[in-house]
Amino acid sequence: MIGGGEGSQIGPAHRLGSGLDGLFEFTAGALDHRPEAGRSYGQQLGLAADRSYGDWREMLEGESAREDRVDLVTVATPNSTHFEITKAYLEAGFHVLCEKPMTMTVDEGEQIVRIAQENKRICAVNYGYTGYSLVRHMRAMVARGDLGKIRLVNAEFAHGHHADAADADNPRVRWRYDPAQAGVSAQFADCGIHALHMASFVTGQEVTKLSADIVSCIASRELEDDAMVNFRMDGGTVGRLWTSSIAIGRQHGLSIQVFGEKGGLRWSQEQPNQLYWMPLNQRLQIIERGETNLSPEADRATRVTIGHAEGMPLAFANIYKDLAEAIRAEKETRPTDPAADLYPRATDGLRSMAAVVAVAKSGAAGGEWVDARPPMFR
Amino acid sequence: MIGGGEGSQIGPAHRLGSGLDGLFEFTAGALDHRPEAGRSYGQQLGLAADRSYGDWREMLEGESAREDRVDLVTVATPNSTHFEITKAYLEAGFHVLCEKPMTMTVDEGEQIVRIAQENKRICAVNYGYTGYSLVRHMRAMVARGDLGKIRLVNAEFAHGHHADAADADNPRVRWRYDPAQAGVSAQFADCGIHALHMASFVTGQEVTKLSADIVSCIASRELEDDAMVNFRMDGGTVGRLWTSSIAIGRQHGLSIQVFGEKGGLRWSQEQPNQLYWMPLNQRLQIIERGETNLSPEADRATRVTIGHAEGMPLAFANIYKDLAEAIRAEKETRPTDPAADLYPRATDGLRSMAAVVAVAKSGAAGGEWVDARPPMFR
Amino acid sequence: MIGGGEGSQIGPAHRLGSGLDGLFEFTAGALDHRPEAGRSYGQQLGLAADRSYGDWREMLEGESAREDRVDLVTVATPNSTHFEITKAYLEAGFHVLCEKPMTMTVDEGEQIVRIAQENKRICAVNYGYTGYSLVRHMRAMVARGDLGKIRLVNAEFAHGHHADAADADNPRVRWRYDPAQAGVSAQFADCGIHALHMASFVTGQEVTKLSADIVSCIASRELEDDAMVNFRMDGGTVGRLWTSSIAIGRQHGLSIQVFGEKGGLRWSQEQPNQLYWMPLNQRLQIIERGETNLSPEADRATRVTIGHAEGMPLAFANIYKDLAEAIRAEKETRPTDPAADLYPRATDGLRSMAAVVAVAKSGAAGGEWVDARPPMFR
Amino acid sequence: MIGGGEGSQIGPAHRLGSGLDGLFEFTAGALDHRPEAGRSYGQQLGLAADRSYGDWREMLEGESAREDRVDLVTVATPNSTHFEITKAYLEAGFHVLCEKPMTMTVDEGEQIVRIAQENKRICAVNYGYTGYSLVRHMRAMVARGDLGKIRLVNAEFAHGHHADAADADNPRVRWRYDPAQAGVSAQFADCGIHALHMASFVTGQEVTKLSADIVSCIASRELEDDAMVNFRMDGGTVGRLWTSSIAIGRQHGLSIQVFGEKGGLRWSQEQPNQLYWMPLNQRLQIIERGETNLSPEADRATRVTIGHAEGMPLAFANIYKDLAEAIRAEKETRPTDPAADLYPRATDGLRSMAAVVAVAKSGAAGGEWVDARPPMFR
Repeated sequence: MIGGGEGSQIGPAHRLGSGLDGLFEFTAGALDHRPEAGRSYGQQLGLAADRSYGDWREMLEGESAREDRVDLVTVATPNSTHFEITKAYLEAGFHVLCEKPMTMTVDEGEQIVRIAQENKRICAVNYGYTGYSLVRHMRAMVARGDLGKIRLVNAEFAHGHHADAADADNPRVRWRYDPAQAGVSAQFADCGIHALHMASFVTGQEVTKLSADIVSCIASRELEDDAMVNFRMDGGTVGRLWTSSIAIGRQHGLSIQVFGEKGGLRWSQEQPNQLYWMPLNQRLQIIERGETNLSPEADRATRVTIGHAEGMPLAFANIYKDLAEAIRAEKETRPTDPAADLYPRATDGLRSMAAVVAVAKSGAAGGEWVDARPPMFR
Repeated sequence: MIGGGEGSQIGPAHRLGSGLDGLFEFTAGALDHRPEAGRSYGQQLGLAADRSYGDWREMLEGESAREDRVDLVTVATPNSTHFEITKAYLEAGFHVLCEKPMTMTVDEGEQIVRIAQENKRICAVNYGYTGYSLVRHMRAMVARGDLGKIRLVNAEFAHGHHADAADADNPRVRWRYDPAQAGVSAQFADCGIHALHMASFVTGQEVTKLSADIVSCIASRELEDDAMVNFRMDGGTVGRLWTSSIAIGRQHGLSIQVFGEKGGLRWSQEQPNQLYWMPLNQRLQIIERGETNLSPEADRATRVTIGHAEGMPLAFANIYKDLAEAIRAEKETRPTDPAADLYPRATDGLRSMAAVVAVAKSGAAGGEWVDARPPMFR
Repeated sequence: MIGGGEGSQIGPAHRLGSGLDGLFEFTAGALDHRPEAGRSYGQQLGLAADRSYGDWREMLEGESAREDRVDLVTVATPNSTHFEITKAYLEAGFHVLCEKPMTMTVDEGEQIVRIAQENKRICAVNYGYTGYSLVRHMRAMVARGDLGKIRLVNAEFAHGHHADAADADNPRVRWRYDPAQAGVSAQFADCGIHALHMASFVTGQEVTKLSADIVSCIASRELEDDAMVNFRMDGGTVGRLWTSSIAIGRQHGLSIQVFGEKGGLRWSQEQPNQLYWMPLNQRLQIIERGETNLSPEADRATRVTIGHAEGMPLAFANIYKDLAEAIRAEKETRPTDPAADLYPRATDGLRSMAAVVAVAKSGAAGGEWVDARPPMFR
Repeated sequence: MIGGGEGSQIGPAHRLGSGLDGLFEFTAGALDHRPEAGRSYGQQLGLAADRSYGDWREMLEGESAREDRVDLVTVATPNSTHFEITKAYLEAGFHVLCEKPMTMTVDEGEQIVRIAQENKRICAVNYGYTGYSLVRHMRAMVARGDLGKIRLVNAEFAHGHHADAADADNPRVRWRYDPAQAGVSAQFADCGIHALHMASFVTGQEVTKLSADIVSCIASRELEDDAMVNFRMDGGTVGRLWTSSIAIGRQHGLSIQVFGEKGGLRWSQEQPNQLYWMPLNQRLQIIERGETNLSPEADRATRVTIGHAEGMPLAFANIYKDLAEAIRAEKETRPTDPAADLYPRATDGLRSMAAVVAVAKSGAAGGEWVDARPPMFR
């Protein structure tokens, strides 16, 4: 693991998620940009002294030289460093799981995609919400045709945690709305892309073009705190996506509705163990996580019996579980279990970055429709 | 009452709503476009033979000649006839409650507004959902400043009752998507304007401009069955509105979220007796219809004690209750109780029609922002 | 109407419920125990001067002498007077709808049942919650065997409106816990019997015996503010019933769960338009009020289309609608529509009274099982 | 770990829960009653060959002889063996976490309590649901007086997974209702005691006496599949508890309501991240897991930020987290963090067993009130 030092929120989440099934062991790290702090914290967490490195370059060198080098490198450093580090490790032959956003530009994203392909390395990106069992079941239902052709998807990620104007000077909030630190987008780049990725994941389609209405409800912000995005997908599906950080009363607000010719689905991250499903001309019914005979994708992503709540850390762990299967399959030169082949990839990271740029561009142009695909996929 | 003959759905609803509090008595009608059928059905419903008319012109003549002429005429005929009938009765000095849409064009709408003003007659339009006690309480909370400046309103009216492609030939569904019968818009004109009117009602602001993305998910339809509308209001509020008739799994789907500087509100027509309210930096709390000390507007619109469900017919009746107060106040030459002065007016009907036209225009122009105000209010 | 004078809560509810469908007209009344106040209030409400009576005896005499005597007398006076008035009107040949409790003793209840039978008059008792469309649908589902044999019913009526110990001296609360005014039971007699009646109504079975645990959570109360009742029914069903007035956080809390061999149902008065139904080994599904093809009982008790909330006043009106049908059928000497033959009867009022006495007796005897049937049905 | 061999459900749950925070490492085990199967499965799970034992006696001997003996032994064997194994390990100086039920008799339970005390060893029992952050917050709220004196607690654990009469011969279901295998109680012993323990945990009070109504809704069962238990607690609180395995439509159904003089709480295991709280005479409000400034007990039991669902595995892990703190505190001869001192103990296991016996006894005696305390606490 690179980054995720003392006091970080994402570091423990990755260690929890990766270790939860006992499929990965935390064996090496460069946890802090301050070499001594990183080395000492790593050892405190149980790393061997010679594998608790001072920085990511030292670790790259050290691990490259070992026979028992790590199987997977998690990159959880500040956003602007993701590209450089991910690139270096991929080129050195490591598999990488990179925190989102994978890069700061579309061009960098394309580079990562090419490097991963050329080196035949896994480059995963952490859209952890697609790890939920019932999100995977939605994808399986769509894929096997339960909904028929998908007409429309409506995704949402609306919270109210940045609604207090008095927080304008709070550094934990402010940087997100500062183009110098956050890039071309705030709320869409932070939350919206989770919803957009989920729309793609569930429908099995990619976004082609979009039109965005972005606003800064708190006037001092340069970047948007609320965005409405209409989009189209390559399978003909129409998309709607609302994201907000000023929606007081909403805690997390990631949800998705999928409407096809033959039925509709509704799911919300805050109650992730129930999925609402209405087959055309029938009644609304509640699918429970852990039901028997759902789908191989759902079954594989479930750990406890029906009726017992499962939450985000287990969804997150499913990304690692997929990666363990992919790495093992590679080692055993066998195909990956298709029900496990669901982790988000570099191409997803790239497409998200292209969507972020498109949203900023369309928003600035009064909602003009713009191509949302990265150049390499046009 | 004009229209609402045998087998109509809206006729009984009006008779229920108007009679519920005993404030209006059903005393005259021209209920059917077939004179004999109308006369006979009216008598069957208890009208005197001489006040069960064969058509609206006969009734206009008959009632105009009476000293005990009706206080209020409800127009519940097919949409294309609303303008002509409403105009005629207003000019003859009757108060009118017209079903929505009030007219088929903006120009007709402006005529009605002017005629009503010149004749000092009430012309109400039936946006019945604003009659709910807690909708009125939202308006009161906004007006008294509980939420501070309103940043954003997100309204929705999404159902799935027109999602079956096999219904393409069902005459009860088909006409809505046929421009010859429905005008320039289907789903937005049918449902969307309820949500838009509610956004205006609750915020106390009017829509100035909008941008729409409209689609026909069922290909054979000429008019839209799904629309996403972004809008701006004259008090600086940003608006989002989604309406759909192909959202399988949603029954009614009229809901509204209002986000201000100091708090957020959420309400849904399907569970109308609870209002979710989060003051900034506090917890989400549930306001119950019938609580003591809500607001004069909410109290006046409540009939049963807290915890007992109230539904749509009582909301509808509140429109009639407001009208009764307005008519009585006029007779008694005293001001109307402000807590009752909440019925939707001709200006609301006009603004809705302007919004319908704007949505169709923006939708056809790829989401271009267009002025949503009627010319007379620009 | 007897009782329901100025300021009463139940008076307007009855006038609303009876008038809502236009099936009854409010034509005579003795609304107050103070003759002048009653006469004047009645006329204010639109009664003719000669039918706005000073007391119930005067009205009995006056109406008995008329050819156009009222079809139905609603008794909404203080509880202790129900027996005397109901008895007098039944004996004089009037149909009666009596507020609950029908009587203060089991013996009085048996007298009323006999008198109604002998005089072939309708004596209805106002358990209004069984008027809800979906409650009637539950009954229909059970009757037609959808659930198979009913194993268990769990009913609840828990609110928190008497939880404030500081209310001990509040006269509107205090009287309920005073045996001199309320009889042998407080919370069970006030609320519990609604839940118990609903259990009987839905299952089509009668309570045979019961065991009660009653407590006064507020020490100064002589009668119970919380009771748990286990019971058995004559079709073999086991029952559980909890009622409380100190359950802070609960507003109304009338709900019922029915479990059979082939499925389970769940319904709650606060969200009355949805019914949760799980057929054995299938998924939970949501039945909506207003669905097509539910049952004749449900259809008849519905007024607005699916997705539009209906509430308590319409449920209440269904009791009156049933009575109108029963009275009309009698006049037309034809059988009553079975889908309308669902109003609660004197036998229900009697059984409730027997249950109240049994709860008090069992509670006092440490939960001993006691016969809950009135002597005439043993 | 003893038990939890291949195919077991509880084994993986314990390994997941204990390893989740990296506080325990799985280093020794006797996983199967078939020695070879156990040894091989243990090694497959990563145990060293010399610590993957053939049976619990071999492991006891082996671990006792080591200097790096295990810190904690988890007993997850069939119920009837819990006593013998737990006893042996406690006497040998190990800390033990025993699956529920801790013993099959009250007398055995008292022995375990005494042995643990005499040997100053931890004997924990796995009532994992009390590990939820918001359950611990309820306890903290009660303890610090937010609710005032607790008047009533209403707990429930009702599911429908044993409702199919056709399952009578299904061995996975049948044994629970067979006294030879399950002891004196089925559903209460399996599920009811979780709810009862939670009532004690939250209120900080112990059950003194109880009255039970138990039934076998499926006639072929000798033991109960539904029970209603009324009880009293040593702090004066009245209790109600319903448990069922035939409640079709309910998935898990563990929930609790707590009513005090100054407020009421409601929580449900299926939506564990929200807690409903109504302070007296105020509005119902929703407490979210992960809110700032809840209580030290809640904060310590939370891992991810507000709005992200947490589920049962994390609750379970909190029991292990508490044990890690207790073991560490003992090693460091310092007091245990009070916010962590919440794991269920041998005394809880004993009291539950006494309650099981009391329920069976009261149920057989028609609901007679019986002492529910173990003899040593009378």
